[in-house]
Amino acid sequence: MSGKFITLEGTEGVGKSTNLAVIVQWLESHNIPFIQTREPGGTPLAEQLRELLLAPREEAVDPKAELLMVFAARAQHLAEVVKPALARGEWVLCDRFTDATFAYQGGGRQLPTTLIEELEALVQEGLQPDCTLLLDLCPEVGLSRAQERGELDRFETEAQEFFERVRDAYLSRAKADPERFHVIDAAQSIEAVASDIRKVLDSELTGAGNG
Amino acid sequence: MSGKFITLEGTEGVGKSTNLAVIVQWLESHNIPFIQTREPGGTPLAEQLRELLLAPREEAVDPKAELLMVFAARAQHLAEVVKPALARGEWVLCDRFTDATFAYQGGGRQLPTTLIEELEALVQEGLQPDCTLLLDLCPEVGLSRAQERGELDRFETEAQEFFERVRDAYLSRAKADPERFHVIDAAQSIEAVASDIRKVLDSELTGAGNG
Repeated sequence: MSGKFITLEGTEGVGKSTNLAVIVQWLESHNIPFIQTREPGGTPLAEQLRELLLAPREEAVDPKAELLMVFAARAQHLAEVVKPALARGEWVLCDRFTDATFAYQGGGRQLPTTLIEELEALVQEGLQPDCTLLLDLCPEVGLSRAQERGELDRFETEAQEFFERVRDAYLSRAKADPERFHVIDAAQSIEAVASDIRKVLDSELTGAGNG
Repeated sequence: MSGKFITLEGTEGVGKSTNLAVIVQWLESHNIPFIQTREPGGTPLAEQLRELLLAPREEAVDPKAELLMVFAARAQHLAEVVKPALARGEWVLCDRFTDATFAYQGGGRQLPTTLIEELEALVQEGLQPDCTLLLDLCPEVGLSRAQERGELDRFETEAQEFFERVRDAYLSRAKADPERFHVIDAAQSIEAVASDIRKVLDSELTGAGNG
């Protein structure tokens, strides 16, 4: 059986860490060989790019520079980690991927979607996740959760409108590709969210969830 | 009078530092307001990207990741430094620019020229140097000079064929745009090279050198 490429998406404070653990547990209980990784990041160079992207800084960051850094990290991550794992037949569980770019740099920063699509085509050459779990939550709730965690990164210091645009962009991508996307209501109890996620993964395993 | 955008290009060991000083001296002696900068780099973020690009590393660097990092640094440099200086009417003297990308990532790494052109259009939106001084030297001579300087960066450890492709790409770009490019024979004496450079700058100032 070939490996599946699973991505987990969502704005700040939606519970990605908790639910990554749920997915890991599900993969382990099904004896599925997998790697867990994240974007931006996943290789030493890509993690260094992540640090540059997230660091709060005096200098205004040009939105195109930010977008190109995101795709540079992605090109490295795909070449060194994601594609080799899929080629070995392993599943890849990735904390954020290109949908986050459409949401944050497209929705949040308001860069043109066509520009992101061009870079996506250049870097991914057609590779797409098999299944994307979108944890959806009102940004007001998510941000207050994120702020409780302590120091904020360069994105977390954005205004609430930014995250509303990010959420809207995520939801409209989900609407446009309902076969790949599974929107999970992250306002539910932790156990209800976990149960929804396991149901999606069960259907993914039997093939029902993927077209 | 509006500012001019002057770039200095060339492979390893051609004498860029020495000749940047020649250009600076010429600008100062003509009381021309200018900034001196470099690529990749020129802003705190872009300099951090430069460090990531040049650092020797265990990890193989994906050529597209490298190219996107170069253009990310360029987008930031143009937005924060180059365009504001030109808008103030200052001259900009830049140690390497996009011709280096066509030479190193295009010629050296053999990435498609069309790909570099697409990113150039995206990031530069038509902005081009007014005058490019290309210091040309046989890579064998240049590399032995560069090696004398001590520790080598990730590019300097490439094989000689790499630098031969870089040089060829530089020369074919110069041939394709003889109005902007001025090829200087860097095998000459230091004084003869400096004299050639001053002649180009004199003609640039009177407008004769720029179409």
